[in-house]
Amino acid sequence: MSAGGDIEALIDMMARLPGLGPRSARRAVLQMIRKKELLLTPLADLMHHVAATVRECATCGNIGAGQICDICASEKRATGEICVVEDVADLWAMERSAVFGGRYHVLGGTLSALDAVGPEELRIPKLVQRVTDERVTEVILALNATVDGQTTAHYIADQLEGRVRLTSLAQGVPIGGELDYLDDGTITAALRARKAF
Amino acid sequence: MSAGGDIEALIDMMARLPGLGPRSARRAVLQMIRKKELLLTPLADLMHHVAATVRECATCGNIGAGQICDICASEKRATGEICVVEDVADLWAMERSAVFGGRYHVLGGTLSALDAVGPEELRIPKLVQRVTDERVTEVILALNATVDGQTTAHYIADQLEGRVRLTSLAQGVPIGGELDYLDDGTITAALRARKAF
Repeated sequence: MSAGGDIEALIDMMARLPGLGPRSARRAVLQMIRKKELLLTPLADLMHHVAATVRECATCGNIGAGQICDICASEKRATGEICVVEDVADLWAMERSAVFGGRYHVLGGTLSALDAVGPEELRIPKLVQRVTDERVTEVILALNATVDGQTTAHYIADQLEGRVRLTSLAQGVPIGGELDYLDDGTITAALRARKAF
Repeated sequence: MSAGGDIEALIDMMARLPGLGPRSARRAVLQMIRKKELLLTPLADLMHHVAATVRECATCGNIGAGQICDICASEKRATGEICVVEDVADLWAMERSAVFGGRYHVLGGTLSALDAVGPEELRIPKLVQRVTDERVTEVILALNATVDGQTTAHYIADQLEGRVRLTSLAQGVPIGGELDYLDDGTITAALRARKAF
């Protein structure tokens, strides 16, 4: 590729973003260079601005522009409910559904013996401390339905046992899901948790 | 999405890049924020640098760091052959195959009556001028095998008729291609252009 060293470096770096490979990175960079004033320069400005302002919320681990994120700063969200999620992406997914009015606690991953991720790396002590300090009434464990996610959920449940109401997201058939395409585990979970019609 | 206005703006802008949608833009932005020092800041720096330095080559329309691109500046590439391509992406594809040792001419699109793209918009007069000025011996028409691409190739051929050797890329079965999966047009072209084995 005789694109000049800087353009090549930009393509290589773009290709490291999730969802982009070398080919789509090339297309993206070419598009940015074509629309230099509309895309390349504003994008670079915005990235610098975000890099300079965005930080982790000291309370919940969400990302935002201040010491404390918007959700933790809002009095409206002080419902006594804390929803525990693995990741900021999961928090965003919960917020898009706009069904939860409480606050969050972002673990930043799951417990993993293989990767040497212990409770301290995951803000679990901070969660235990919040349950004491914030008069929390309910902790909703919204961890992913994977082995690591469920292991982490059980560990947190052990830590908070008897001190607060603990719940987890319901498991079952997703809305719009067809039985024929569902895995056995989901069908088993949905049948066990069946409700009166 | 309660990601803060700046992060949301960054996601929106990233989602406008080809190959990225809203979901992959969110994942990419989250990854960049996680790796702020390794990814977000260097990427923004590099984009500013590219925006400030990259420009179109005055001769061939390729993008590069100077008034004249590396290929046009290199004496080694003065073979008297000019390969005419639609787009910088096509030039990069040719360069990756590393089989062509001459220079390029990037049209910047194809003739299109519908979109009111005429020869002037496509650097065709500049190509005619280069054939006179640069002692060109052969013009290789490497335009895409689409209707617009072939229309443009015929127009250029008319302009240069009798003044230079005109060739075009061979059409046929792609390497690794299976006949069963090829369209009728390709099979027809490959059969008509059959060679002694």
